[in-house]
Amino acid sequence: MKRPPKAPSITVSDVARQAKVSKATAARVLGGYGRVSKTVRAAVLEAAKALDYRPNELARSMTTGRSGSIGVVVGDIENPFFSLAVRGISDVARLSGINVILANSGEQVEAEKNAIRVLMAKQVDGLIVTPAQSGEIAHLVEIACSACPLALLDRALPDLDVDTVTVDDRDAALRATRILTRAGHTRIAYMTAAVLSGDFRGGESRINTSTVRERILGFLDACQEAGIERAERNIRFGSGRSETSRAAMHGLLQSPDRPTAILASDSVVALELFKTIRECGLHIPQDMSLITFHDADWTSVTTPPITVIDQPVYALGKSVAELLIRRLKGDDRPPERIILPTTIIERMSVAQVPDVITQATA
Amino acid sequence: MKRPPKAPSITVSDVARQAKVSKATAARVLGGYGRVSKTVRAAVLEAAKALDYRPNELARSMTTGRSGSIGVVVGDIENPFFSLAVRGISDVARLSGINVILANSGEQVEAEKNAIRVLMAKQVDGLIVTPAQSGEIAHLVEIACSACPLALLDRALPDLDVDTVTVDDRDAALRATRILTRAGHTRIAYMTAAVLSGDFRGGESRINTSTVRERILGFLDACQEAGIERAERNIRFGSGRSETSRAAMHGLLQSPDRPTAILASDSVVALELFKTIRECGLHIPQDMSLITFHDADWTSVTTPPITVIDQPVYALGKSVAELLIRRLKGDDRPPERIILPTTIIERMSVAQVPDVITQATA
Repeated sequence: MKRPPKAPSITVSDVARQAKVSKATAARVLGGYGRVSKTVRAAVLEAAKALDYRPNELARSMTTGRSGSIGVVVGDIENPFFSLAVRGISDVARLSGINVILANSGEQVEAEKNAIRVLMAKQVDGLIVTPAQSGEIAHLVEIACSACPLALLDRALPDLDVDTVTVDDRDAALRATRILTRAGHTRIAYMTAAVLSGDFRGGESRINTSTVRERILGFLDACQEAGIERAERNIRFGSGRSETSRAAMHGLLQSPDRPTAILASDSVVALELFKTIRECGLHIPQDMSLITFHDADWTSVTTPPITVIDQPVYALGKSVAELLIRRLKGDDRPPERIILPTTIIERMSVAQVPDVITQATA
Repeated sequence: MKRPPKAPSITVSDVARQAKVSKATAARVLGGYGRVSKTVRAAVLEAAKALDYRPNELARSMTTGRSGSIGVVVGDIENPFFSLAVRGISDVARLSGINVILANSGEQVEAEKNAIRVLMAKQVDGLIVTPAQSGEIAHLVEIACSACPLALLDRALPDLDVDTVTVDDRDAALRATRILTRAGHTRIAYMTAAVLSGDFRGGESRINTSTVRERILGFLDACQEAGIERAERNIRFGSGRSETSRAAMHGLLQSPDRPTAILASDSVVALELFKTIRECGLHIPQDMSLITFHDADWTSVTTPPITVIDQPVYALGKSVAELLIRRLKGDDRPPERIILPTTIIERMSVAQVPDVITQATA
């Protein structure tokens, strides 16, 4: 895995000499411009490889090792939420001439630790992280204790006072759930990909991701407000993209006391649900109302289009990058915690409960 | 932007002394375990920060700088095609204990050069790139000439003989277009986000991305086979996510000689098209048949579901990572060019032309 030790600087002339061609010819091949015969080209490339030739520009940046870069560790790069946030980060960074390098934790804290270790070893100038867990943060405390600025994206950590940008998760879940309770729903499920061992029995302190916890609290607030008892029974963890999750969704949707409405914690969960609802022969919204977090591209093209909690995802990325870059420039004011507001886009996926009853008895 | 020069190794004892607490207490705070009072915690963190304390593990990896990592430069991380390919790469890398760090070119060759420069400066052990252009590849030739292994994902470069994994783009486009011609369509548009200045007039050599070129050639093959003349008139470049692209789509769909069928080069283009077709009051497939490259998640949940060219995207990522890792382990056999086969998933988005005529005269 190791490269050979760095040779003393190899120049285009060295390559030309080894390949027995003129310096101009070697430069044309190595620079990728102009025309040369295939044989000459092959000879030059072989010589360059044999000598481990590295062009000056590369050699320079490899010596200094610093080029103004920030590392970003996201939970799941396949979730369009994160890729859009990354665009927000990248656009701001580009304006400051700063490069962004990305790593994916897959929502696993060990992978997150590893990614951070790698990015620190690569000497990034700052880090943006969406922490996979709030229970295991020693590795983040380490960074906060170092001279490398750290900012948190989308998920706050109560015990880590660094620049943080989140959305109003609790309030958003409250407002979305209210749309369902006001439409008369009393059997409402909340589905999240987050994993919690065992059932949820008021044990919100066991939920290790701030967004998950806040949203569940907002969901429960709205249920309580509507007089729905034991709403926590209908919180379903582990509703990800897996086969077991699919099977669990099927089970839920085919049970006699199935919910009449579901709030999905992200668009990946919601898409799985959408497919499963159809597979079970149910119709949205007549048989099942559905609201999801994140205005993913597909939510507006389905029949019916889906009511969503529109998070300012791009702005989330933009803001956290601005905070981090301010630190890179030497700003040392106390850490900021910015909470961005969400809006609800009401589409056609929520039915009044009388409709549900009519449908069921038809 | 620079960090202060590295201080001689600061230990937990140094931090404890500065914070005036026991070493055990400092270790608890810095390690993020056990219980300490808020005041003590604050004092320890402040001392650690003042001394620029870095835990051993970090210090170690920052000294060696090598941790078995590969850099991946993709065209557009927001395109689900690339995020899925990255999962294939990451899964293979993880099995070999190799870390993946990502950068996004946004399909801009300058950004790609920059990303590669950064990753090389960060001393990645190997690189995987989806080249934004085949016309400007000096920076890739540089890498190929260096000791850092390079592999290409999804896009081949005729002039750069390195490990490459692509799909059978030309054949896939041919087969998809055939579905349209055999349904009787003669006005078929091909839409791609790729940019080409001016109209396409048989100038395929001016197309700088191999996938774009191959697919267009396949499209033209099928048109020619069906006796469709001047099919190249209906190739539309620049059909991305922008406002101007939207306006152009509207123009095309509202023109009197609008196409009756469209082949979209990726799912991002296809989703924009799907929305625009609806906005124009047209129906799929009655008024417009649609086939797209990439079996994106949304294509199966729309009404109607969309016929797609299913590329083995995960396998594409997996294969290219396997080739690269083989090089990292010292394999020096000649470069491989692997072409993976695609399949077409026929759904409900293609109509026979008689239907179109009936609809138009109804």
